[in-house]
Amino acid sequence: MKMIDGGVCAATGFKASGIHVGVKTHNTEKKDVALIVSEVPCATSAVYTKNAVKAAHIHVDIKHLADGKAQAAVINSGNANACAPKGEENAIKICNAVAKYVGCATEDVVIASTGVIGQEIKVKVIEDGMEALYISLSASAEGSDYAAKAIMTTDTVKKELAVETVIGGKTVKMGGIAKGSGMIHPNMGTMLCFLTTDCAISPEMIKEALLDTVKVSFNRISVDGDTSTNDTCCVLANGMAGNAEITEKNDDYYEFVKALKELAIQLSMKMASDGEGAKHLITCTVKGAKSEESAEIISKSVISSTLTKAAIFGADANWGRVLCAMGYSGEDFNPDGVDIAFKSDAGEISVCEKGRGLVFDEDLAKKILTEHDIIIDVKMCEGDGECTCWGCDITYDYIKINGDYRT
Amino acid sequence: MKMIDGGVCAATGFKASGIHVGVKTHNTEKKDVALIVSEVPCATSAVYTKNAVKAAHIHVDIKHLADGKAQAAVINSGNANACAPKGEENAIKICNAVAKYVGCATEDVVIASTGVIGQEIKVKVIEDGMEALYISLSASAEGSDYAAKAIMTTDTVKKELAVETVIGGKTVKMGGIAKGSGMIHPNMGTMLCFLTTDCAISPEMIKEALLDTVKVSFNRISVDGDTSTNDTCCVLANGMAGNAEITEKNDDYYEFVKALKELAIQLSMKMASDGEGAKHLITCTVKGAKSEESAEIISKSVISSTLTKAAIFGADANWGRVLCAMGYSGEDFNPDGVDIAFKSDAGEISVCEKGRGLVFDEDLAKKILTEHDIIIDVKMCEGDGECTCWGCDITYDYIKINGDYRT
Repeated sequence: MKMIDGGVCAATGFKASGIHVGVKTHNTEKKDVALIVSEVPCATSAVYTKNAVKAAHIHVDIKHLADGKAQAAVINSGNANACAPKGEENAIKICNAVAKYVGCATEDVVIASTGVIGQEIKVKVIEDGMEALYISLSASAEGSDYAAKAIMTTDTVKKELAVETVIGGKTVKMGGIAKGSGMIHPNMGTMLCFLTTDCAISPEMIKEALLDTVKVSFNRISVDGDTSTNDTCCVLANGMAGNAEITEKNDDYYEFVKALKELAIQLSMKMASDGEGAKHLITCTVKGAKSEESAEIISKSVISSTLTKAAIFGADANWGRVLCAMGYSGEDFNPDGVDIAFKSDAGEISVCEKGRGLVFDEDLAKKILTEHDIIIDVKMCEGDGECTCWGCDITYDYIKINGDYRT
Repeated sequence: MKMIDGGVCAATGFKASGIHVGVKTHNTEKKDVALIVSEVPCATSAVYTKNAVKAAHIHVDIKHLADGKAQAAVINSGNANACAPKGEENAIKICNAVAKYVGCATEDVVIASTGVIGQEIKVKVIEDGMEALYISLSASAEGSDYAAKAIMTTDTVKKELAVETVIGGKTVKMGGIAKGSGMIHPNMGTMLCFLTTDCAISPEMIKEALLDTVKVSFNRISVDGDTSTNDTCCVLANGMAGNAEITEKNDDYYEFVKALKELAIQLSMKMASDGEGAKHLITCTVKGAKSEESAEIISKSVISSTLTKAAIFGADANWGRVLCAMGYSGEDFNPDGVDIAFKSDAGEISVCEKGRGLVFDEDLAKKILTEHDIIIDVKMCEGDGECTCWGCDITYDYIKINGDYRT
């Protein structure tokens, strides 16, 4: 397995693009609609937010993916089409416009939206822009680059990756684009992420693979504890790599899932790292918990703790915040068996042993915590469970961005 | 029932004080130990944090209150005595020092600490300062004022209140002091709050009354979602009002609980309003939920939402944040039955009806949200459940305060 270029266009048979059609009115430079199209129909699966309030596109996608097949994906930024008038009606109109140009059924188009909640989406500008968008489709890396940029909202960097592996003797490629910067605390689905692969895999198995993957990637990050109404992660597999179709959990399946997980984890870390206003990527590794589930709950509680996030922002080695967040996670454990260390490229420092504070070099701690990537390393004495979750610090900029998001 | 002056000294037979002994080293002006003493032993009950990591004082108090009796309470700020060396040993030493001057058993002293986690408490300076603290005790309003100030950490205002009511034909007084500004998301107990009353009530009934009370007051506020290791709410009832002792849930009991709830709710609102860095008190009222429990979960989810808090900071009527936070509360409900309005002294504005955004006067919305006290008014169509919770906005100052709390 190796990282390659090309994002969602890396896999054979996929084209993509992104242009500005006018959903975002403040800035005509900013792309606002992305399109991904496969030459042939794909085994397709998606997972969505567990928020009781769901965006219109989710209701449409659930119907369109009932048969586990799709050929195109359209994604707009600038408007979430959630709690908005004519939500489903407009989402279907957009799918219709795509289907017309691609030459597939409306039901073979998946759709996603991200942006402001509660305002009617400008369906006309999207319909009117569809021809230009379709014409601009490209199988080159540029196509994916444009699509990745078109789904950004408050993101400061595009998130795009691809990997290559060998399955059943054939080279299989997979890539993805994702957005997510605020309102990030995925539960089941996540932000927006579209993955493409040329692997031959059945609709049943692609669904299993996606569920296995999001559990250890997107569901293990948090920016602000707010689970969005629009979270969607979708994977399209067109089979053009020519491998024997994966129809059961055999070696090929596990090889495929391994690569998909790697791709998804890397994209997840990019999202956490680009959390709104973030200055630090925080990785919390928990070892010695009573189970993986328990380790995940504890690790997630730490990366979600506003006080821990503020301490990291201030490069303050305030491990009491970490232990406290572990304590209110809801998991039962012996605090007297907890060791905590902070790590980064600048070094490593133990700050708590057996639940008690150690005397440590504050200058070294400050130096370690001034790096961009910070690891909070937690060891417990409950069992063999371990898990890693990713988050970011909370900064003045986060508040600035969200104090006036709509206007 | 009416509000009166005097705080924890309002009730007959209570004295209090607070002085600087040296736990806080940065500023010798700041009081750091408070003492509350009753003339006679009190029926006493306390509730504590549900955080798995508990401060040493909680382990000591559980033992000391096994008989439901106490005569004095000592509280220090500047050091949480949590995850710290010699935690329980030092807490008992402090109780010993109090008992010596008060002339009661060590077990009749309750103790609480608040401040930095993980550092050994300076027990010697507290022991050495005990004589001066005891001598300074006063039954006047000043005694309570000093005690209220001595338990403050990042609080910007002291929290102190008292009420008077009539129970069984006798005038009964009760008052309280509280601290809490950050790490506020109480679960069961809360921050630090000490309540005193001259009501005659049995240890069993005072326990019931306290549990009934915290449920609708301190457990309904949040500043930052971080449940502290030290949360403690304690009530001491010395019986000196001369009413017939309350030993069952009769009319006198309900009158007592009514007054205690009023006192606790007012103190809770003061805490939320003085949340670290806060510029707004946010009150979220939820009506029409399927039950009171469901309304509470939904209301708490709204006041805990970082994005909602940031929107209020920015005076941005972003109701999508509110509906989204309701949606990820874990409660199931019909989003199409939700109405949302924002209210304050400057007026009222409906922003969402039946789950869809309304066109509204943005200037009026801005004006409403610029006031200090903001009400987020949510109406649902699930049933008769209603609940009110209190929180605050998140500001640059919150991050500044917590980016460098220890140093």
